[in-house]
Amino acid sequence: MSEYVNDFRRAGHEVVDWIADFLENTRDYPVLPKIKPGELIDALPRSGPEKGESFEAILADFRKLIVPAATLWNHPRFMAYFPSTSSTPAILGEMLAAALNTNAIHWKTSPASTELEQVSLSWLRQWMNLPDEFFGVIFDTASVSSMHAIAAARELADPEARENGARRDLVVYAADQAHSSIAKDAMALGIGRRNVRLIPSDAEFRMRPDALAAAIEQDLVAGRKPICVVATVGTTSTTSIDPVEAIAEIAERHGMWLHVDAAYAGAACIVPELRPLFAGIERADSLVVNAHKWLFTTMDLSAFFTRRPEVLRRAFSLVPEYLRTAKDPRAVNLMDYGVPLGRRFRSLKLWFVLRYFGREGLIEMLRSHVRWAQEFAAMVDADPRFERIAPAPLSVVCFRLKGSDQENQALLDRVTATGKFFLSHTVLNGRFVIRLAIGNIATTREDVAYAWELIRSI
Amino acid sequence: MSEYVNDFRRAGHEVVDWIADFLENTRDYPVLPKIKPGELIDALPRSGPEKGESFEAILADFRKLIVPAATLWNHPRFMAYFPSTSSTPAILGEMLAAALNTNAIHWKTSPASTELEQVSLSWLRQWMNLPDEFFGVIFDTASVSSMHAIAAARELADPEARENGARRDLVVYAADQAHSSIAKDAMALGIGRRNVRLIPSDAEFRMRPDALAAAIEQDLVAGRKPICVVATVGTTSTTSIDPVEAIAEIAERHGMWLHVDAAYAGAACIVPELRPLFAGIERADSLVVNAHKWLFTTMDLSAFFTRRPEVLRRAFSLVPEYLRTAKDPRAVNLMDYGVPLGRRFRSLKLWFVLRYFGREGLIEMLRSHVRWAQEFAAMVDADPRFERIAPAPLSVVCFRLKGSDQENQALLDRVTATGKFFLSHTVLNGRFVIRLAIGNIATTREDVAYAWELIRSI
Repeated sequence: MSEYVNDFRRAGHEVVDWIADFLENTRDYPVLPKIKPGELIDALPRSGPEKGESFEAILADFRKLIVPAATLWNHPRFMAYFPSTSSTPAILGEMLAAALNTNAIHWKTSPASTELEQVSLSWLRQWMNLPDEFFGVIFDTASVSSMHAIAAARELADPEARENGARRDLVVYAADQAHSSIAKDAMALGIGRRNVRLIPSDAEFRMRPDALAAAIEQDLVAGRKPICVVATVGTTSTTSIDPVEAIAEIAERHGMWLHVDAAYAGAACIVPELRPLFAGIERADSLVVNAHKWLFTTMDLSAFFTRRPEVLRRAFSLVPEYLRTAKDPRAVNLMDYGVPLGRRFRSLKLWFVLRYFGREGLIEMLRSHVRWAQEFAAMVDADPRFERIAPAPLSVVCFRLKGSDQENQALLDRVTATGKFFLSHTVLNGRFVIRLAIGNIATTREDVAYAWELIRSI
Repeated sequence: MSEYVNDFRRAGHEVVDWIADFLENTRDYPVLPKIKPGELIDALPRSGPEKGESFEAILADFRKLIVPAATLWNHPRFMAYFPSTSSTPAILGEMLAAALNTNAIHWKTSPASTELEQVSLSWLRQWMNLPDEFFGVIFDTASVSSMHAIAAARELADPEARENGARRDLVVYAADQAHSSIAKDAMALGIGRRNVRLIPSDAEFRMRPDALAAAIEQDLVAGRKPICVVATVGTTSTTSIDPVEAIAEIAERHGMWLHVDAAYAGAACIVPELRPLFAGIERADSLVVNAHKWLFTTMDLSAFFTRRPEVLRRAFSLVPEYLRTAKDPRAVNLMDYGVPLGRRFRSLKLWFVLRYFGREGLIEMLRSHVRWAQEFAAMVDADPRFERIAPAPLSVVCFRLKGSDQENQALLDRVTATGKFFLSHTVLNGRFVIRLAIGNIATTREDVAYAWELIRSI
């Protein structure tokens, strides 16, 4: 045993130093790898080794083959999609979670992770200024969190679904700017993509409540059963914000479940002056915010909150004999709240992040990102060759060259080809649009200014 | 930036030493914590800190409050459920995955993790002696893997389901010993728990093919649509092995999807003399084996293999504009194969494990676990006060005191109350049965002998 552990001790120290050096010098690495599909596969042996290999050999290959093939999401100049950060407290939390390797199937199988999940999500909930009755549970991704929201909505509308299967007349509503995961969730749940109504949005890419109300009326007249509205706070294309208050009004009138997808923007909810953007979310039945997006937490940690945990529980509770334990009102069994039975110790890294930065530290970082995005937007506005395509309420700016889609695509390709920045695109009103998104912990004001410099010069 | 990184460097080295000490001395820690529900919640502040805290303070609380509240799944005397191991190469893999924090939504967002997922699963597939055409993809848990299997079965039987919703006449079959996740998956997918037929098993807890054939006939006569059979190789209660060949025969005859749940036992498939236990799995349409169970890989890593990736892809592919990329036949987009869109770099730890131990090293460890379980079974058989309740083909032994359920429950409670071992129970033929399961990397033959010593003396 001892040689096995000593081997780890040596390699572990080496890995910590490698990570520290990597974090210190990330800008020296290209954000996007220069690699063709299949190249890494071809560079690796077709079969695994018969005999064990040394950490030295494995780590050498990691540096030589894996890192150069990785798109570096933890890079300060990753400004595509929604940037994310694996911050240092989160990395330490992951290390210790890996060492303990607990599995919170039910309370007894891991009191520590079961209760820390409740504690850390309760801290986050308070900072987000959400009502006390919101119960938190962690899933891997927002897609899976939203799937559980829609499943709970189904349970509420049709309690027999869990036993008899889904009715084919159930309808889910989301804006045409909602994330594609809503449609995918409906496919998985047996509701069907055709039963997801994509409600038109207004000129600023926000769901139109009048169109929502009309769509619901139409379905009711046709004898269908509206069960769920998904409002997005911070859409994936433009970070537009659906009018949650007005949507909540409609959902309540029809007894429908209101799910708020704040996977990216939810982090900003803890910033006092941004909190008004989230007006109405306290009326949601459920809400998802990904700590692994803009809350400096290592992939994956999707925080799911619901005011109606008992409905989620009814949809998913199913306890076989070999997992039966004594009942205690304070012993929460997280397996009752969703599909996954095994559950790793994800809350540890979130708890480390919340403690290491504190509320003020997190607010300060988020505030900077939003400020820099506003500065970038102002620079775009000041340049007559460019135009902005959507409001930028948070840390994402959508803009384009005044020109053809081809010219914009070419501009984006040339920026990413430098290896210095990774930006992504979207399509709005049929036109190709470039997105610049800020959110990594190591990003500086200078990085953002440099991005604009590079874009202008190309 | 530099102070931020230096702070990590210092704390990181401290954490590596803590982990090494913990791994060296795990037996000094109780397997099960002495803690009451709510005790950790009460010991922690009700709100998070305003200002950031030092790693020193956070790590001190980790040691003082979190570790004593944790059920130690990484403990050599954890012999409950299915033991698991976070081995040292897996921990290093997790550390580096956390540092890179890649997110393999599609190929371009992380070529390294997309391709290493294919490579590491291909190595594992070869060692398991599965046909080349099995395509591998990683999910978090077996529950989620099996959900995707049943969703693929539905896609095959009813290609309109993804658009129009699930029909209510679809039927899934599994043995009465199958894992509860199959029923839960059917609930989630909108198939309904009532449409999962639990087929009776024989005296050795294996699905009865004649009963399966009869159930299918009955459903066909009633106008229902059988879509999927789940065969279990290594059931959760007894590790019994369903007759896969005979079940495959029936599934093929009816054009049904055959899913093999080998979440625990699949690891043993790489041991040549145990491979015959898996006869017929090459005829499966899909198969799940959890590397985080008996393959020494940190939670979570559920390896899902399917011979029909195109069906899975049809069930789940849905690509929004902001994720559209150029087409390349070698660029696999893993988001197309399931519900989760985000995808952390899980394959890195598996690749580290496969390389560090090599095929021979893994075989040797698995072989030892099976041998010690056989020795334990022989000791139980030799003691007239005890009886064994099921065959022990692998590393789990089911036994009981010849006496009442209460006496057996009391025995189990007293063993676990010592804090030295964690064993679990199940119910077979209406009787309370104790399970001893071997699978942690640090478990020794002496640990197993000591467990028997303790049980006998109590």
